[in-house]
Amino acid sequence: MIKDRLEKLRELMVERGIRAYYIHGSDPHMSEYLPARWQTRAFISGFTGSYGWLAITLDRAALWTDSRYFLQAGEQLSGTGISLMKARLPETPDVVSWLISNLPANSRVGINPECLPFSLYENMLDRLSGKQITLTGTGDLLNEIWTDRPPLPSGKIFEHGMEYTGESRIDKIQRIRNGLKKTGAGRQILTALDDIAWTFNLRGNDIDFNPVFLSYAVIDQEKSVLFVNQDKLSEDLKRVLENDGIVLQEYGSVFGFLKNTEPFSGVYIDPDKTNQSVVSAIPSSCSILEGVSIPCLLKARKNRTEISNIRNAMKKDGIAMLEFLYWLEKITGKERITEYDVAVSLHQFRKKQKGFMGDSFSPIVGYKKHGAVVHLSVDEKTALEIKKDGILLFDSGGHYLDGTTDITRTVALGVPALQQKNDFTWILKGLIALSNAVFPENTCGCHLDILARKALWKHGLNYGHGTGHGVGFFLNVHEGPVEIRPGFNTNPIKAGQVLSNEPGIYRENEYGIRIENMMVCVEKETTEFGKFLGFETLTLCPVDTRMIRIGLLSAKEIQWLNDYHQMVWNELSPLLTGELKSFLQEKTRSIAP
Amino acid sequence: MIKDRLEKLRELMVERGIRAYYIHGSDPHMSEYLPARWQTRAFISGFTGSYGWLAITLDRAALWTDSRYFLQAGEQLSGTGISLMKARLPETPDVVSWLISNLPANSRVGINPECLPFSLYENMLDRLSGKQITLTGTGDLLNEIWTDRPPLPSGKIFEHGMEYTGESRIDKIQRIRNGLKKTGAGRQILTALDDIAWTFNLRGNDIDFNPVFLSYAVIDQEKSVLFVNQDKLSEDLKRVLENDGIVLQEYGSVFGFLKNTEPFSGVYIDPDKTNQSVVSAIPSSCSILEGVSIPCLLKARKNRTEISNIRNAMKKDGIAMLEFLYWLEKITGKERITEYDVAVSLHQFRKKQKGFMGDSFSPIVGYKKHGAVVHLSVDEKTALEIKKDGILLFDSGGHYLDGTTDITRTVALGVPALQQKNDFTWILKGLIALSNAVFPENTCGCHLDILARKALWKHGLNYGHGTGHGVGFFLNVHEGPVEIRPGFNTNPIKAGQVLSNEPGIYRENEYGIRIENMMVCVEKETTEFGKFLGFETLTLCPVDTRMIRIGLLSAKEIQWLNDYHQMVWNELSPLLTGELKSFLQEKTRSIAP
Repeated sequence: MIKDRLEKLRELMVERGIRAYYIHGSDPHMSEYLPARWQTRAFISGFTGSYGWLAITLDRAALWTDSRYFLQAGEQLSGTGISLMKARLPETPDVVSWLISNLPANSRVGINPECLPFSLYENMLDRLSGKQITLTGTGDLLNEIWTDRPPLPSGKIFEHGMEYTGESRIDKIQRIRNGLKKTGAGRQILTALDDIAWTFNLRGNDIDFNPVFLSYAVIDQEKSVLFVNQDKLSEDLKRVLENDGIVLQEYGSVFGFLKNTEPFSGVYIDPDKTNQSVVSAIPSSCSILEGVSIPCLLKARKNRTEISNIRNAMKKDGIAMLEFLYWLEKITGKERITEYDVAVSLHQFRKKQKGFMGDSFSPIVGYKKHGAVVHLSVDEKTALEIKKDGILLFDSGGHYLDGTTDITRTVALGVPALQQKNDFTWILKGLIALSNAVFPENTCGCHLDILARKALWKHGLNYGHGTGHGVGFFLNVHEGPVEIRPGFNTNPIKAGQVLSNEPGIYRENEYGIRIENMMVCVEKETTEFGKFLGFETLTLCPVDTRMIRIGLLSAKEIQWLNDYHQMVWNELSPLLTGELKSFLQEKTRSIAP
Repeated sequence: MIKDRLEKLRELMVERGIRAYYIHGSDPHMSEYLPARWQTRAFISGFTGSYGWLAITLDRAALWTDSRYFLQAGEQLSGTGISLMKARLPETPDVVSWLISNLPANSRVGINPECLPFSLYENMLDRLSGKQITLTGTGDLLNEIWTDRPPLPSGKIFEHGMEYTGESRIDKIQRIRNGLKKTGAGRQILTALDDIAWTFNLRGNDIDFNPVFLSYAVIDQEKSVLFVNQDKLSEDLKRVLENDGIVLQEYGSVFGFLKNTEPFSGVYIDPDKTNQSVVSAIPSSCSILEGVSIPCLLKARKNRTEISNIRNAMKKDGIAMLEFLYWLEKITGKERITEYDVAVSLHQFRKKQKGFMGDSFSPIVGYKKHGAVVHLSVDEKTALEIKKDGILLFDSGGHYLDGTTDITRTVALGVPALQQKNDFTWILKGLIALSNAVFPENTCGCHLDILARKALWKHGLNYGHGTGHGVGFFLNVHEGPVEIRPGFNTNPIKAGQVLSNEPGIYRENEYGIRIENMMVCVEKETTEFGKFLGFETLTLCPVDTRMIRIGLLSAKEIQWLNDYHQMVWNELSPLLTGELKSFLQEKTRSIAP
């Protein structure tokens, strides 16, 4: 089937006079999760992982993905004629090098500019042109061979009220306009769906796990235009938006709008989030200014209302997690349950909570050796049965109207081995060190990352993923612009930003351990040496003390854990009665050296 | 006088038809310390600081320098008509912005391309051309008004023998050729003087504190050409070099050589270290590849012979430091001494050691409030008298044939106050944390920097300088490519690299505290999670335990200090007798909680 599709694609390529076709595998908004319509990577290659891109010539094809997916991609690509390119390994050529070595000079490479970020387009153009290879926008060639291609998603849009957001769309747009003035640009084009949802205080249902809707927006000092298919909006909501001065236009009309409006001194775009079709619609009389999108910078810093809402959502999520932990403890060894049942159960307990709007991502549940597969997605067939031994890792989260959560716990189902306790304790030391961080303004995530890893490194251990990511407010669970990882992200951590803190360790074919809390960055003090920031932990859920080797913790670390458990008890116990309250009491009991 | 010089310069500018002249303030090799001939900044502005650049139009002039020099520059520029531009402050325009706002369109800006790095030239060209302003190479206009300009330095060059370097120049050149192959370039032009000194196992006397000599070099797969004025070389040394296959040419002939030699597939240059005159001499048929210079990467990783030599130099430096500390303790309160005498004394004690070749930089001696001035240079007039109270900071180093040293100690001359002890102890904690770091391959300095600062940050304290810099081997005391500081230097720390570790704290008008050791990066272990690196401390000199508040140290930190002092005792005591040995015993005594 894949071979047939590739053959049809190659026929089209010959017709169009292109010798290669590049598929970036994203939607027009560079979303992390893709609407079915833009799952082009899976359609053309059969590879279903969340990360990868393809280049197809008339006689070769290659798919790049990273180490999380080497095994899966290897299996799924087998027999398709598509080679697996192990991305990020030094010996692996990148797409452009691969194209150059597989194409004669004067070749044309086809792209769909609507699904290609401007920054990548520029980079490809620059490097290929040095080799006399041209890039040609062909539109989406898959359209012509994908007969039952899913249509544009048509989920309804709803308002996210002021009681949640704490700031009106009018005020947000004003802040974007103020930000624009500082850049010197006259206009910003918004393309990231979470930027748009945040700006207009709207949410939608077009993408799994992300409460966003397909749209573009343009904001300048006079106008704010929202490009969205009108049948997604109720008449009432249209009126509300129009009363706030928002101009509504159809989703597809953004290109014409950009082409036909008066030239501005400059148009501000985020080069990694804006597709090449949008950029090429900007009249050449306008200069283009590049930078992180203004709403991305603004929305990362949660306001007081949002933080107070998140704290409330954390209580609900904490209750759901506690009910889950109680259920798990009762059922394990008594009834047959699998990793899949755990995922279902996590969802069910969250669903009981007020304002629950869905899971914030597909839960990761890893029992024993499955825990070592960092991006495992379990289904009913492959799920392991969970028994009364070994350890279980579960990473899950929910959307509530008052906040998005993301939490990982790892629990002992039997008596943990010494190595497991050591590993868990070193990870806990990392979690605590990052939670306790105090740092001056202008510190970035890469400066703090070592705190979470130091105890592991001392013992020759490490983990391959980042330590922390931004979390949206009833929005995407992975939110920019900051992150905590070794990579050089130059956006400093600022007060109000909500970040995860999730060190882990993965021993292949043995087990995985990760502990994840969410934290909010707060101001600590201002001295003659500057302003200092720190974190407050938001997540409210006990850490499994049976997994801890207390002797490895310092007195201060023990104090941190006891204080944390005291806070969990203080926040959750008033909401509980009976057995569940006793269970919480037991799980939040102080530990002593 | 400055006004006269500016007037003459402006007359020349008018003659040449340029509306502005830019003076980068460096020599043709982008050296940290300048030969007198290229102290252009001081000549034209009167400002004698080590960092700054000037732009001069027909009616305005501005000098940019950083916070270390705001006070000094303000005083020295007063009355000259030159404005002080506070570099690195957000409100300060950079040179290009300043030129744009002070020049009409179609202006020409003159530069001396021989003293302008290629990277800056490209950046200026790009930004100015957008505003219809052109850059014009005028040569060094100061030549025509600086009548008693010092000539090119003419220090003699000498061999640095294999017993010190551990690797012949033939082998080094072969490694550079291997490195070149990997870049895909056919030729590298060496322009940094320490790169050249290292490559050819030669040292010189052209620049204060840096044992280098004015030169260029070109290395390709066939030839290695050293461009140096021949009267610097003895006939014997010429023969030695020629026997090793080195072609010798005069310093100034490099430009003609580059212009007239056959085109290569590519020429590899370091854009920050190569001046624009060199780049423009490369035939346009050659492509230019940019990157950190290959000898810079190679020389940073010291070989076994070098490290064993450095350990020996450290013993000599340790003895000199100990003699100094003993002298200081005896003399303080008895005879009148000043900060200047301390600097002289440090030099005298080092000079007694075998193979001493000079100070590695101008010593920084700061008593009481002077200690808070990070880049203080004391002279006889401004030096404070040192009495039997307060604390004294001294940062100094020596060149020996077997290594370069850089050490800072801060000692109590009376009974230190609680705040002083707290500060000292937090700095010591930072020094220890960085000394004990264990980290995976590909870790950069910015990832480790927090270790040295964490204890200070917890108390709202910080320091404005980097934590560590590379140190050359009988070469420049500041050596690239790695450093430990928050800035995003992407060169990873590698085994064999020698770095300083120097956290500090500076309380304005009170005192400064800094402790500095040198360390070498070593391999620690290789596990299934990768290769892990760490440091071994090289510096051998007691830390003043009277300054420590022991209660703030953990048991492990106390252990580290006691182990360190034990090592200092073990290494130095066999070389000592009598009072000095007893003094060392007292200074390296264990502390207990």
